[in-house]
Amino acid sequence: MSDTFFYYPDIRENSQLSEEESRHCIKVLRMKEGDRLTITDGKGFLYDCILVEAHPKHCMVSIETENFRDKSWNFNLHIAFAPTKNMERNEWFVEKATEIGVDEITPLLCRFSERKEVKSERLRKIMVSAMKQSRQTVLPCLNETIPFHEFISMPFSGRKFIAHCYPTEKKRLTQTYKKGEDALLLIGPEGDFSEEEVQKAIEKGFQPISLGENRLRTETACLVACHTVHVLNQLEL
Amino acid sequence: MSDTFFYYPDIRENSQLSEEESRHCIKVLRMKEGDRLTITDGKGFLYDCILVEAHPKHCMVSIETENFRDKSWNFNLHIAFAPTKNMERNEWFVEKATEIGVDEITPLLCRFSERKEVKSERLRKIMVSAMKQSRQTVLPCLNETIPFHEFISMPFSGRKFIAHCYPTEKKRLTQTYKKGEDALLLIGPEGDFSEEEVQKAIEKGFQPISLGENRLRTETACLVACHTVHVLNQLEL
Repeated sequence: MSDTFFYYPDIRENSQLSEEESRHCIKVLRMKEGDRLTITDGKGFLYDCILVEAHPKHCMVSIETENFRDKSWNFNLHIAFAPTKNMERNEWFVEKATEIGVDEITPLLCRFSERKEVKSERLRKIMVSAMKQSRQTVLPCLNETIPFHEFISMPFSGRKFIAHCYPTEKKRLTQTYKKGEDALLLIGPEGDFSEEEVQKAIEKGFQPISLGENRLRTETACLVACHTVHVLNQLEL
Repeated sequence: MSDTFFYYPDIRENSQLSEEESRHCIKVLRMKEGDRLTITDGKGFLYDCILVEAHPKHCMVSIETENFRDKSWNFNLHIAFAPTKNMERNEWFVEKATEIGVDEITPLLCRFSERKEVKSERLRKIMVSAMKQSRQTVLPCLNETIPFHEFISMPFSGRKFIAHCYPTEKKRLTQTYKKGEDALLLIGPEGDFSEEEVQKAIEKGFQPISLGENRLRTETACLVACHTVHVLNQLEL
């Protein structure tokens, strides 16, 4: 089994790799005909393959064995966040969240958002790369950017949380989230959610939470929320 | 109290701000004489001050009140890691670890290290900035780079862990670390610690641990280790 996975969502229908993956195979890894490679379709399947045609633009592979290997956590984790002005910080968050484990990411458009749109294609590429590098088989879903008020009205079956910095009474995420629960967490922009947004979210069933004493940057708060849920799920109760 | 803290380690001896902080005061924040600012010395003290001379290169302040406000965690957390080839990933780690909370960071020189030195001054600046931005009063200590074998022989009073990816028996950090314990965690380079390094560390009292199922990049593993200890300390037992 090769070290890093390859990603090819249509492997079952078509045994020719994409131009990008082919280039990676031949030019970067200098693979030759007969070499083995491990391909994931990003939907949980892992294919042990043999390179049958080593072409720098369109490699052909043949599937030897096929296995289903689900994600390593048994809950649904959805982070919805207001992207930061600095795009690198958003890229960093999606990379790290993918490595650690997340099911769904939704960019939100909030009252105090400093960024109105994200380059989804670029973020998806980073997520694919992080999935392959961390040897996972399921690609998290990156949704399109959606206005805050529209998003909080959508159905979600699980616990719903909104992290904010206003000095009102709220529990720590570590004190209220319980192992095994599906969770949706909202993280606000650099200037926080507006008080009205917090209020509306509470009306829609979101529980206000704190992520700790220190004031965290948006992308740090996103990652802290994501990883906190994982740690709580690793505990033996 | 102003939003972001200012950092001035010698405030008690000298009421003139550094050129950098003065510029920030006057040129970025456009502060005027009589304005209030909050200064930390990075050693736990917080000074509520008044700007008495608004000079773009050497502001003068007078201290109004002084408070001691310790770090928000009651354990000692030391992360020693092999810096990655890509310097940005190291910068990212020290920024995020400072925001979340760390006491000491030590860059290690390992058998498979791809980077032999780090720009300590630049990393320290990033840590100062993260401390101020997250409104903390204690600056974590960044040690000089040290060879692995020298480092593991140094005394440390607390639990000592080494994270590695070899398929030997090891516990998860979440299953062995206990709330309140001081902890020193070793995180290896991109190519992992050598088997000999792992063995030597074990002989020196380090416990081998896993950080989870997914293969994490060095800087992600550092942050996951750091944040795991914080989450476990937030639990009500």
